[in-house]
Amino acid sequence: MKFNSELDNIRTYEAGKPIELVVREFGIEPEDIVKLASNENPYGCSPKVQEAVSAIVDKMALYPDDSMYKLKEGLSRRFGVNKHEVIIGSGSDQVIEFAFHAKADSNSKVLINSITFAMYEIYARHVGAEVIRTQSREHDLDEFYALYLEHKPSMIFLCTPNNPTGESIDAESVKSFIAKIDKETLVVVDGAYMEYTHYKDSDKALMPHELIAAYENVLYLGTFSKAYGLGGMRVGYGIASRDIITALYKLRPPFNITTLSLEAASAALEDEAFVQDSIAKNFEEMERYKEFAASAGINIIESYTNFVTLCLKNDQNSSNVALTLLRQGMIVRDLSGYGLNALRVTIGKPSENDRFFELIRPLI
Amino acid sequence: MKFNSELDNIRTYEAGKPIELVVREFGIEPEDIVKLASNENPYGCSPKVQEAVSAIVDKMALYPDDSMYKLKEGLSRRFGVNKHEVIIGSGSDQVIEFAFHAKADSNSKVLINSITFAMYEIYARHVGAEVIRTQSREHDLDEFYALYLEHKPSMIFLCTPNNPTGESIDAESVKSFIAKIDKETLVVVDGAYMEYTHYKDSDKALMPHELIAAYENVLYLGTFSKAYGLGGMRVGYGIASRDIITALYKLRPPFNITTLSLEAASAALEDEAFVQDSIAKNFEEMERYKEFAASAGINIIESYTNFVTLCLKNDQNSSNVALTLLRQGMIVRDLSGYGLNALRVTIGKPSENDRFFELIRPLI
Repeated sequence: MKFNSELDNIRTYEAGKPIELVVREFGIEPEDIVKLASNENPYGCSPKVQEAVSAIVDKMALYPDDSMYKLKEGLSRRFGVNKHEVIIGSGSDQVIEFAFHAKADSNSKVLINSITFAMYEIYARHVGAEVIRTQSREHDLDEFYALYLEHKPSMIFLCTPNNPTGESIDAESVKSFIAKIDKETLVVVDGAYMEYTHYKDSDKALMPHELIAAYENVLYLGTFSKAYGLGGMRVGYGIASRDIITALYKLRPPFNITTLSLEAASAALEDEAFVQDSIAKNFEEMERYKEFAASAGINIIESYTNFVTLCLKNDQNSSNVALTLLRQGMIVRDLSGYGLNALRVTIGKPSENDRFFELIRPLI
Repeated sequence: MKFNSELDNIRTYEAGKPIELVVREFGIEPEDIVKLASNENPYGCSPKVQEAVSAIVDKMALYPDDSMYKLKEGLSRRFGVNKHEVIIGSGSDQVIEFAFHAKADSNSKVLINSITFAMYEIYARHVGAEVIRTQSREHDLDEFYALYLEHKPSMIFLCTPNNPTGESIDAESVKSFIAKIDKETLVVVDGAYMEYTHYKDSDKALMPHELIAAYENVLYLGTFSKAYGLGGMRVGYGIASRDIITALYKLRPPFNITTLSLEAASAALEDEAFVQDSIAKNFEEMERYKEFAASAGINIIESYTNFVTLCLKNDQNSSNVALTLLRQGMIVRDLSGYGLNALRVTIGKPSENDRFFELIRPLI
C-alpha cells in the first residue's frame, strides 16, 4: 500500500524491549538499575497528588471533562492569564504538534537551534516542512536573526532552558529578539524546564503572561513532566494570544488528557512547596556534579535544568562510556546522536548520584 | 496571524462548562445527576484494574514504557496476532488520526456511512480530504460499493456496530465487500463496541486476526473505553498488516499513553470475566428498553452495543425531550445533529434505567 509522501522522510520507530529489560539481561537486578536518562523528577510528585489520584481510581470508566475546567482554572490562576489563552496537550509535545499542523506545511521552513529538543524536527517532517538549524551549540540570537532574514521561516523555536544542553538564554534578549520578528512568524518559547531556571536565575526566567501581553505571535510551552513530577501522566500546556489558542484548539482531539491526569495536574498546582523543595534539592546536588566535573577535568555546560551535560575529552567516547555504564545498570543519555561527545545525566537523588560518580570515575 | 487553510473548514471547539456543572445550575444535586450520554460502562472497570493502578500511583513521575511491551503482549495474545501488527493510540481516535495523516490529503476522498462516528469527518477536515457519505441510515454495502466505484476513495470506514445507531453489519458481508476493494484503498473497520456484538450475535462479530490474515488493506480498531470500562484512560488500538502498522507508527508521538493507562489496560485484559459479566447485564437491561419502546409505541434500532437509539414519533422533538430530561438531571444524547429525531441512551445500571423510564414516560 502506498502512503502519503511525507512518511518517506520519517524514520520508522520500531520500539524494542524497554531498556530496563535489556539491562536485566546483563544480569542486573531491577533494584540495582538507576535511570538518570529522562529528566524525570527523582523525588516524584507530591504525596497530595498521589492521594488525589488514588481517590478517583473508581472513576476510570468516565470520559475526562473535555472542557478541562478545573485544570484551566488552575493554570490561568497560576500564570495570570485568561482561560482562553491556554491549551492543554498530552505533554507539551502535543501542543508542538498542533502548532506545526496549524502553521507549517511542505512549503514552510522552521528555524531551530543546532542542538535542541528532537521533537521539533520530527513534527516538521510530519508536515513536510524544511528545518533550518543554527551552527552555534548554544542559542545565538544574532545567528537566529540572520537566518530568519535569510529564510523567512513560518516558525522559530527557542528552547530555553535548552534540552539537551541545559543552557538558558537571557530573558531580555529573548524579548528583544521577538520584537524584531514579523507578526506572521510564530515564535515558540519552549519552557519545559523553566521552573528550574526561575529558581536559579530570575534574569533568565520568562513569564508567559508578559510574553503574550507584549507579542501576539508567541506561543509559550510548559509541562507537568519535569518539575511537577508527572512525566508519566502526559500533561503539558501552551499559553498564547486567544487567536493562536483558537487555531490550535481546532486541531485538538477530544479527550486528549486522561481523567486521572487532569486530576493529577490540578492537584500538583496546589502543592507548589513540594515542587520548590525538589528544585532546591536539584541544585544542591548539581553542585556535586560540578565538583565532580572539575575534579575529573571535564567540561560541564552551565545548566538551568534538572540535568547536566558532561562534555567528555577527545580521548573518551560518549557512546562507549554510556554503554559501559548501561552494562552496570546505570542508564544515562549519550549525546553522540546530536554530534556531541557528551553525556546528559539527570540529577538524581543523592544516592543515585553517588552511584553515578562511583561508576563513571574509572571510565573518564 | 494566518494559519494553514485546512483550519478554515474546522469548526472551533470552544469548550464550555462541564455538563454536570450546567445541570447543577438547574438546582440538581450532583448525586441526582444521571449521565447516560457517553456509552461508558456503567459497571466501571474491574476492581483488579483499580488495584493495579492504585499500586503504581508513586510511579507517576516516570515516563511510560514507550515500547508498550506489556500491553502489546497482552493484545497480541488476546487477538492471536503478532506484536508488529498492533499499534496503540490515545483512544482508537488517535489511530484514526494516524490513518488519515498516513493515507489522505487534500486530494483524497473518504467514504463513510451517512450517520456514523463524528470523528471520521473531523479528522478528514484536518487533512483537507473530501467526505463522501452514503444515503442509507444503516450501512448498505451495495451503496458503499457503488460510491467506491464512482469516487475511488483512499479510505473507507465501516463502523460496526455503528455509533450512534447501534446497528451491526453481517460479518460475511463485510468480508465479501473488502474482497472487492482494491489493495490501495484502506478499509477501516471500527469495532469500538465489538465485544457487545460478539456476545449478542457471533455472526456479526469480526475477528481482527481473520481480517488481517485475509486482507492486507484492512485496519481494525478496538478500544478499552467501552466494554473494558476505561473511557477516562484513553487507550485504543489498531490491528493491521505490518506494512500499515509501520506507516502509522511513523506518526505516533512518543509517550502517547500514560503510565497509569498502560497498567490499567494491561490489567483489564487479565479480567475478562468482569467484562463479560457487565456485557451480560447490559443485554438484560436492554430488554427493558425494548419493552419500554414497545409500550410507548416508539421505534428502537436493533442494537449490538451498550446503548439504544430511540426514534421518536413525528409529533415529538428529540431536542426538546433531551432538554427537558437535562433540566431534571438526566443526560442523554440528542441525535438531531445527525438528522435523526432520536435519542441515544447509554444502557445504565438498573436504577439509572428506572430513572430514565420514569422521566421520559410523561414526555413521549
